[in-house]
Amino acid sequence: MNEERIPRATAKRLPLYYRHLNLLYNQGKIRISSKELSESIKVDSATIRKDFSYFGELGRKGYGYDIAHLLQFFRNLLDQDEVASVALVGVGNLGTALLHYNFMKKGNTQIEIAFDTNREKVGEKIGDVPVYHVDDLEKELKRKEIKVVILTVPARAAQEVTSQLVENGVEGILNFTPSRLSVPSHVRVHHIDLSIELQTLIYFLKHN
Amino acid sequence: MNEERIPRATAKRLPLYYRHLNLLYNQGKIRISSKELSESIKVDSATIRKDFSYFGELGRKGYGYDIAHLLQFFRNLLDQDEVASVALVGVGNLGTALLHYNFMKKGNTQIEIAFDTNREKVGEKIGDVPVYHVDDLEKELKRKEIKVVILTVPARAAQEVTSQLVENGVEGILNFTPSRLSVPSHVRVHHIDLSIELQTLIYFLKHN
Repeated sequence: MNEERIPRATAKRLPLYYRHLNLLYNQGKIRISSKELSESIKVDSATIRKDFSYFGELGRKGYGYDIAHLLQFFRNLLDQDEVASVALVGVGNLGTALLHYNFMKKGNTQIEIAFDTNREKVGEKIGDVPVYHVDDLEKELKRKEIKVVILTVPARAAQEVTSQLVENGVEGILNFTPSRLSVPSHVRVHHIDLSIELQTLIYFLKHN
Repeated sequence: MNEERIPRATAKRLPLYYRHLNLLYNQGKIRISSKELSESIKVDSATIRKDFSYFGELGRKGYGYDIAHLLQFFRNLLDQDEVASVALVGVGNLGTALLHYNFMKKGNTQIEIAFDTNREKVGEKIGDVPVYHVDDLEKELKRKEIKVVILTVPARAAQEVTSQLVENGVEGILNFTPSRLSVPSHVRVHHIDLSIELQTLIYFLKHN
């Protein structure tokens, strides 16, 4: 298998495959066809077969795919066995929701630490995650070797905080602010702009 | 201009263009080049010029694009002048954050009503939005002519609630649950899976 060859769209579906197959595995299911999987996760079966083909020939005609085999394969690929430490910066409404949000407790991805400027929040724990003052950003990011940050600060603070994060070794930012961030090319930003998601959905509804 | 011809990727950038140009307009700026715009919103200038070309020839060499003209154009396109009524179902942590989230108060997109099963929340207002019991879903969706819903219920309830929404005329769902939803083909679902966004970001960091 040559990981370099996996297209981005395929890579994006890996966590989805992983989670759904894990669910089936926990329910005692042993194998699944691309057609069944397609119906469950709403990805067409040709796409599933093509995606799986990038990982080598894993399915068998009339038998389907071995779930345990696929899971182990995906687990390695997604590095689910290795814990990724994530920090969250900005403990407002959205930040608080994400700290409570249970996806953090699944898999091996955890928010280990949160930062805010509000002294009333500093020292608290939200969803088991301790809140530090942003003045401690540099020290704590280095101490915990954090490379990934969820950014939920107000838009006006987004770029300044981002520059601080990059200076302190952060390589990936999940940006929930409406700001477009300037970062060096080695830093990856995934932008989740809720406002644009909603406007685009409405736009499509009106024009389809 | 033929709206049918606008590619999906271009359509997705429209709200971004709109919002950024609106900001510039409010700051008194009259015109902008694709290069300047590119630097601000981190979309390359060739893409901007190509996107704008779908709307007819709006830019002039050595002058750039007229911001007021573009804004009026986008405003019509995005139907920003028409208020879209949106409902939110599931007033947990994430739902509450979205009710408070200020994107709702900008533009003409508003969450008008929220629903939950928790009797303690029913009758309250969160971020000015009244919370109703889900038993009133049918009556209230019809009364308010709501076509778009933000779904923030627990994953186990997602499909059941979705079926109810579709039965009551909802045509667009912004799905924040990890569930993949089954809907008829006339209903559009935009899936924002926070867990997968985070896992994918980490996956890319490790494999790039």
